[in-house]
Amino acid sequence: MINEITVQQLNPKQFIKEQVAAIAAAVGDGIAINALSGGVDSSTVTLLGHRALGPRLKTVFINNGIMREGEPARVAALFRRLGVKVEVIDAEQEFLAALKGIEDPEEKREAITQTFYRRVFGRIVRRSGARFLLQGTILTDVDETVAGIKRQHNVFAQLGIDPQQAFGYQILEPLLQLRKDGVRRVGRALGLPAEVFARMPFPGPALSARVIGAVTPERIALVRQATAIVERRLKSTGAFQYLAILHQDRVTGMRNNRRAFGHQIEVRCWDSVDAREATPTKIPFATLTKLADEITATVPGVVSVTYNIARKPPSTIEAV
Amino acid sequence: MINEITVQQLNPKQFIKEQVAAIAAAVGDGIAINALSGGVDSSTVTLLGHRALGPRLKTVFINNGIMREGEPARVAALFRRLGVKVEVIDAEQEFLAALKGIEDPEEKREAITQTFYRRVFGRIVRRSGARFLLQGTILTDVDETVAGIKRQHNVFAQLGIDPQQAFGYQILEPLLQLRKDGVRRVGRALGLPAEVFARMPFPGPALSARVIGAVTPERIALVRQATAIVERRLKSTGAFQYLAILHQDRVTGMRNNRRAFGHQIEVRCWDSVDAREATPTKIPFATLTKLADEITATVPGVVSVTYNIARKPPSTIEAV
Repeated sequence: MINEITVQQLNPKQFIKEQVAAIAAAVGDGIAINALSGGVDSSTVTLLGHRALGPRLKTVFINNGIMREGEPARVAALFRRLGVKVEVIDAEQEFLAALKGIEDPEEKREAITQTFYRRVFGRIVRRSGARFLLQGTILTDVDETVAGIKRQHNVFAQLGIDPQQAFGYQILEPLLQLRKDGVRRVGRALGLPAEVFARMPFPGPALSARVIGAVTPERIALVRQATAIVERRLKSTGAFQYLAILHQDRVTGMRNNRRAFGHQIEVRCWDSVDAREATPTKIPFATLTKLADEITATVPGVVSVTYNIARKPPSTIEAV
Repeated sequence: MINEITVQQLNPKQFIKEQVAAIAAAVGDGIAINALSGGVDSSTVTLLGHRALGPRLKTVFINNGIMREGEPARVAALFRRLGVKVEVIDAEQEFLAALKGIEDPEEKREAITQTFYRRVFGRIVRRSGARFLLQGTILTDVDETVAGIKRQHNVFAQLGIDPQQAFGYQILEPLLQLRKDGVRRVGRALGLPAEVFARMPFPGPALSARVIGAVTPERIALVRQATAIVERRLKSTGAFQYLAILHQDRVTGMRNNRRAFGHQIEVRCWDSVDAREATPTKIPFATLTKLADEITATVPGVVSVTYNIARKPPSTIEAV
């Protein structure tokens, strides 16, 4: 049983002090490694680890080819400004090859998890000589994995992997007692800029979770473009999370006055505190219409755009 | 070239007088037949034909098994009250068999068209001894068929069928110069109740146009249930047309705190004058949320509901 620290109970400075000390004590004079995704969880862990270990924390950013527009460069530059060196690993081909031909969401997550841990990151860890792995697991990840709602890719025990046995290293999860709102407070207190500590959640399987059915470079490019539009246009809502999903279903549309069978993009925008429950954001219709207009005008082959109106539960934040 | 009569130019009484006379002159002392769907076009044609021919017009309602909840009984009862005898033909099995295994929208329409004209209605016409067929074709059907946007099932020439040659009868299309708004005026002037003349358009392929992918009795039952909810809840919007679509894509959802892969229903509600251009109706969010709540709570397996926010064009009113 994990002892939750609610955001009301949390004292960020105290929490940081304790976790930095715990990491320093655990790693001793060894080397630790962590994978940074750019999300608030892994960014916060990176800064905690950096504060505890300095250059003895090796931080890698794995470009899996299913990231958002410009993300790898943006994240690396941001941490460079914070004084943390991040090594960007290009693994696009390896991930896309692993995802080829897979349509089932569970198999998709599995392929990404396996490629990430067993192949790409596993290889980096083995070569690094590190014996400690820092993970940004939060309490909601554990809850949802245990409940079977979602399989979080960063909960090792749930995957049946004993990292000590499998890879010979030990996992440190300094954020395990927090939920997203607590992590944001800690990230802010550590000096993360608002674009990170206030960044909305983004799924582990990245844009492959935003494509229903087959993941191909072409389909990732379409959803990446729609995602950039949605993120730019809905930023001012201040919502918890907003996203674009490329459907596999094709729908009838019209181009140049003729029937054209085309793609549909679903937009979701959620009001939520901690992702456990969520409600669609009440966005003005004028905003929704302009959003749909831009998506159909600029994303190739898209003839239809919808806005999700169901709550979580019974919906979930992501569709895949 | 068809000479359009706009709703501004239309004099309903004069139009009725002329069309009744034209039908009477064409049919002489023969027998005519028509298929009533319950929509405003075929209902108006039924009353025009009835006024011209009395009992020498034979009107059939073909239950294709893909109708909305209670529709066959409702339409037959309504016309009985108007003094028009309607024969209800049960052809559910024939249509569902023809649709089996078909996912492509064009093949779906084709299967329904062929089953309707070549098999079910064709058989009825041949047995009836009628030599005249009354059709509710309107100008928009012709435009859209010619433009290739949609293939209207009731435009014979477009299907390469010469009815005179194929079946030995002549087609009469008294509404050919009108658009939907004009037909409504004429229907009203003929004494149709508001529930018919103000009835929103409903596609020829009925609920099979509201199911993306495979048409099965189970999937028709789901979309029929969602359709009843959408029609009841959105009636007060006074919108041009509102509908529910069952997607083939499955999305992640939650039931009883566990992950459940489920169905998605898409709701469309259109503001339009004549269906050539259309804009999503600005529905209050509270209404959308209650709509989604009822659909997810009552339609089995549905975990997600979306609302269409793209205009026509590039979207179309229906998805299939």
